[in-house]
Amino acid sequence: MKMDDVILLSHGDGGLLTHNLIEEYFLPHLGNDLLLNLDDSTSITVRSDNVLVTIDSYVVDPIFFPGGDIGKLSIYGTVNDLSVSGAKPLYIAASFILEEGLKLSILKQIVASMAEACNEAKVKIVAGDTKVVGRNQVDKIFITTTGVGTLLEGVNLGKHLIRPHDRVIVSGPLGNHGLCILLQRGNFSFKTNIKSDCAPLNKVIEPLLKTFNGVKYMRDLTRGGLATCLKEIASSSRSIDILLDEESIPVDEEVRGICETLGLDPLYLANEGKFVIFAEKDESKSLVKFMREDLGLGMASIVGEVREGSGNVFMKTTIGGTRRLNMLSGNPLPRIC
Amino acid sequence: MKMDDVILLSHGDGGLLTHNLIEEYFLPHLGNDLLLNLDDSTSITVRSDNVLVTIDSYVVDPIFFPGGDIGKLSIYGTVNDLSVSGAKPLYIAASFILEEGLKLSILKQIVASMAEACNEAKVKIVAGDTKVVGRNQVDKIFITTTGVGTLLEGVNLGKHLIRPHDRVIVSGPLGNHGLCILLQRGNFSFKTNIKSDCAPLNKVIEPLLKTFNGVKYMRDLTRGGLATCLKEIASSSRSIDILLDEESIPVDEEVRGICETLGLDPLYLANEGKFVIFAEKDESKSLVKFMREDLGLGMASIVGEVREGSGNVFMKTTIGGTRRLNMLSGNPLPRIC
Repeated sequence: MKMDDVILLSHGDGGLLTHNLIEEYFLPHLGNDLLLNLDDSTSITVRSDNVLVTIDSYVVDPIFFPGGDIGKLSIYGTVNDLSVSGAKPLYIAASFILEEGLKLSILKQIVASMAEACNEAKVKIVAGDTKVVGRNQVDKIFITTTGVGTLLEGVNLGKHLIRPHDRVIVSGPLGNHGLCILLQRGNFSFKTNIKSDCAPLNKVIEPLLKTFNGVKYMRDLTRGGLATCLKEIASSSRSIDILLDEESIPVDEEVRGICETLGLDPLYLANEGKFVIFAEKDESKSLVKFMREDLGLGMASIVGEVREGSGNVFMKTTIGGTRRLNMLSGNPLPRIC
Repeated sequence: MKMDDVILLSHGDGGLLTHNLIEEYFLPHLGNDLLLNLDDSTSITVRSDNVLVTIDSYVVDPIFFPGGDIGKLSIYGTVNDLSVSGAKPLYIAASFILEEGLKLSILKQIVASMAEACNEAKVKIVAGDTKVVGRNQVDKIFITTTGVGTLLEGVNLGKHLIRPHDRVIVSGPLGNHGLCILLQRGNFSFKTNIKSDCAPLNKVIEPLLKTFNGVKYMRDLTRGGLATCLKEIASSSRSIDILLDEESIPVDEEVRGICETLGLDPLYLANEGKFVIFAEKDESKSLVKFMREDLGLGMASIVGEVREGSGNVFMKTTIGGTRRLNMLSGNPLPRIC
């Protein structure tokens, strides 16, 4: 391997090699009229008083996995945080921390994947930064992205709007991303077709919010899975309980099978393209019908309802009992996203 | 040391410990009406069409140094990128990547320092994220911050506005931050009082831009120092040269002495509280007077001027010669910010 096939410490010193790295590796893929200025900050246009901002660091291991890679994840993850907040994602700022010795071909592949994801989600990268640290001071590449968007017109979401009788809807089968990453890391003997569900949610959430008024609140189901997300929502209200119906929770057959073998609960596994909706009871059935028939979310389902209560999440199990769900605790699977 | 005195992998799993970490370590210092919502994204108010965005990752080693720490740097660095762009910094989003085993007392100290820096710079942290990775997969703590601000009224800056005869002004003595970090890392026998110059520039840039119309362009002098910054500006124009006068470039006596001993050039060392201004010739003297007398920047100086040319930076040296300055290249000092 030639010296110039890998990231060197000098690529991060702000001098000539940093300049070349940006010119040769970032701009050809990510360049646009706003980014090309290469100034200390970028001027963006927001035609709204309601601007939404989110930030996330992506440290997923491995950096390439079935269904995606760290670059794609870093765009869709941030797009999704804005989407479930009712915003139209517009701009992304991206910062890279690279390990000395990282192959430039890998960086190129990740940046190209980010560019493709930006196209798919219709967002622009408007600001960036690159740092390089020594070997074993970071594991290959970490990416932090900030998303900026504007609230969709007429949309008003918030967990404070959730009321008893509201229905809980999930957009599709749970657990695929988390299980996919876990299977990549472990030394398992069986072959599977499980892929990450990594996808941009603005493509389905925008038409959904334009069509229905009864959506109260949404969250994407990343770290901690559906169970942790619902427990957080219930706890923060304190005056509601959430009652889930296990039988109605969509999980792919293969995911369910492997989870049973490995003793995992898909309700606690991360997803990167699934979300939960709290919606008015009266609209919930037509909402699910729309999701299934018009948005291509064939397994979208009503999985539970809100009751008066004191911050708990209960699940009616398939065998007829009821169990209480808590936040994920212990047995962590680190670096899932 | 007790188990719960350090960061565990579970602190990053999105479950109970993540929740507790946020409640106990982040919110007490950084909490405000916008952050307390703890949603996937945060709604901010921007009363302007001209919104500016910037992002930077901070990986400085060591994380505590004379004059600052990684937390303070992560706020001021981003505040400064907005300030030199003519914006009023308003909001910060911050993302933390933590190493398993990091002492919680250290995290607490860094978060407190960020809170103090936010107060000082009058910005609010509005969104955040925390990831935990295993030992030796990151070095202690990396912080990425995004800054959002609005362009100050009536301000119009850009390197395309720079013209021959414009003056080049620096706001104070150069090289302190870079040298400070270098001295912390090396095994040097001499004692020094050199501190990082880490400071929020909005405090001086806002009054400056309100008082003078002749400012064309500004940059803060971080990685690569003054020389790299000027070479970038000259190269991107191609129709100007920049001529510096070495004698007029402010450098603290102690910094100059140590740089000579170690063979370093303060023009290539990073600063974290210094900036360069390109200003109209006619206003430049009164501008420096104002900086010295009204803004407390006692060593602000005109250090050069713009000529017609072809993208070069020349320096008239103290011994009467002229040398050409290029971007920093080789001999990198990694993890300076």
